Amino acid sequence: MPKIVERYEGYLIDLDGVLWAGQKVFPDAIRAVNSLHSLGKSIVFLTNNSTKSRAQYVEKLRKIGVGWVREQDIVNSGFATAKLLKEQRGPLKAFPFGDVGLYVELMLQGHRLVTEDWCWAGDVDAVVVGMDPNVTYWKIGAAANAIRAGADFVATNPDKTFPTERGLMPGAGTMIAALEAASGRGPDLIVGKPYKPIFDMALSVLGIEKSKVLVVGDRLDTDVIGAKNARLDCALVLTGVARAEDVEASSAKPNYILGSLEELLLR
Amino acid sequence: MPKIVERYEGYLIDLDGVLWAGQKVFPDAIRAVNSLHSLGKSIVFLTNNSTKSRAQYVEKLRKIGVGWVREQDIVNSGFATAKLLKEQRGPLKAFPFGDVGLYVELMLQGHRLVTEDWCWAGDVDAVVVGMDPNVTYWKIGAAANAIRAGADFVATNPDKTFPTERGLMPGAGTMIAALEAASGRGPDLIVGKPYKPIFDMALSVLGIEKSKVLVVGDRLDTDVIGAKNARLDCALVLTGVARAEDVEASSAKPNYILGSLEELLLR
Repeated sequence: MPKIVERYEGYLIDLDGVLWAGQKVFPDAIRAVNSLHSLGKSIVFLTNNSTKSRAQYVEKLRKIGVGWVREQDIVNSGFATAKLLKEQRGPLKAFPFGDVGLYVELMLQGHRLVTEDWCWAGDVDAVVVGMDPNVTYWKIGAAANAIRAGADFVATNPDKTFPTERGLMPGAGTMIAALEAASGRGPDLIVGKPYKPIFDMALSVLGIEKSKVLVVGDRLDTDVIGAKNARLDCALVLTGVARAEDVEASSAKPNYILGSLEELLLR
Repeated sequence: MPKIVERYEGYLIDLDGVLWAGQKVFPDAIRAVNSLHSLGKSIVFLTNNSTKSRAQYVEKLRKIGVGWVREQDIVNSGFATAKLLKEQRGPLKAFPFGDVGLYVELMLQGHRLVTEDWCWAGDVDAVVVGMDPNVTYWKIGAAANAIRAGADFVATNPDKTFPTERGLMPGAGTMIAALEAASGRGPDLIVGKPYKPIFDMALSVLGIEKSKVLVVGDRLDTDVIGAKNARLDCALVLTGVARAEDVEASSAKPNYILGSLEELLLR
C-alpha cells in the first residue's frame, strides 16, 4: 500500500476542482475515491459551496459513479452553517441570502425562513449569507437593515469568486462585501473554509483523530490555509484553481502536491 | 446685507437633505435659494446622486418653485462622470452600472452604451458605477469580468448608503464594494464628493474665484470633507444627515453651522 494512504484513515475531500470542474467530471478522481472507500477509509466530502443541498450532492455523486455515498458523508457550508446555528442558538428566524440549497438546509435544521418584510420590521435573528444568484437591490437593503437592527450577520463561506466555464463569477464573498458596505459592519461568523467551524464539524462527522486525517483540495486560500488553521495535514491537487507556481509564490505550503486525486493512491 | 451672503458670490448647494429630504420639500430652503438668486448670486446645485439626469432635476426644481433654474446650473455625479470621461478619454464604450439618469448623461456626452455581452467579450473601455436599483448577479459578474479584462473602473460617488423614508438604502459605495470583491481591484476614479473632480467641474461652471465660493451641504463625510479637500469654505445645514453632535465628534469642521438653508440669509 502506498505511503500516503497508509498514513491517513480519514479524508476530507473537496469537490469542485477535485472530482469535477464546472460541468467536467474527472473519471480518475471518481475511481480514486471509490478505491479509498474499498480500502475501508472514511471519507467526508467538504465543500464551501452552499448553493446545493446535501441531498442534491448525493444525487450528483451517485450519478457520476460514487454509489456508496450517503447524506452524512457530505459537509457543505450551507449545511454546516444551518447546523451550527441550531446547535449554538436553537431554531432561529433566519433571512436566507443565498441559493436554494441554503434554504433547504436551514429548513431541515428547523430554522424559520423569513422574508424581506421581517428584515424591515427588525424581527430577524440571523441573516445567513451565501452565494446568491438572485441578489437584488431591495434584498441587499432589507438584509442590511436587519443587520443594523441587531440580527447576526452569518456567512457560509468567504470565497469572493469561483471559476466557471465563462470565467470567474461572484461568490459568497462578494455578497458579504455588499452587505458589509450597506450595513456598516462585517460578518459575526464565517463558517466555511479556511475558517475552523466547518473543519470542526467535518471532523466530528468523521470521528477520527486529527493526526490520521488528510484534507484534500484545489485551493491554497481555503483548503490549504484552512487545513493549517485546523492543524490538519493536507494535499493540494492541481486539477482546479491552484497551479504549481502558485504554491511556490505562496506562504501556504501543503504536505503533498498531487497532479490529480488518483496520485494519492500511487505515492 | 448679512455677513455670510456679503462674503460669497458663488454657492455650491447640495440638494437632498438641504432643499428636500426624500419626498419632503423644505419651503423655507426654496425661498432661500430664490432670494440668493434675486441678490444676483451664482448658484450651482451639486449632488452625488446619479440616478436622475440634469433635465430631471430641472423639472423637479421648477415644480417645487425654483423657476429660474437651467440645466447648466446642475452638476450631479452622473453628469460630472460622463463629462470628465469625455474630456479625458473621448467617447468611450461604457458599461453603465447604475440607474436611468446615468445612462442618459453618458449618452448625452456621446459615449456608447454597451451590454453585458461586451463585458464578457472584454470589449469595454469603462465600467461606470453609480447606485443601481436593478443590480443583478449576472451584471456584477459581467462588470467584474470587464474590469479584469482591462476596462477602467469608474465610480460616480462613494456613498455606501443614503437615507430614505424606509431607512438607509444601499448607495453607489455598496455597488463599488461588490465589484471590488468580484473583480479583485478597487475603482480607478471616483468623481463625486468628497473627491475633487466634481468640485473642479462645479467651480468651472460657476466661474468664480475659490475665495468667494461657499459649499452648502448636509453631510460631513461628503460635503464638509469635500469642501476642505477642494480648499473651499463650507456651511453645514442640519436639515439632513448630520446632527450638531456629529460635528462635535468629527474632525471635519464646517465654517458655518446652519439650522436650515434660510439661516444663510440671516447671519
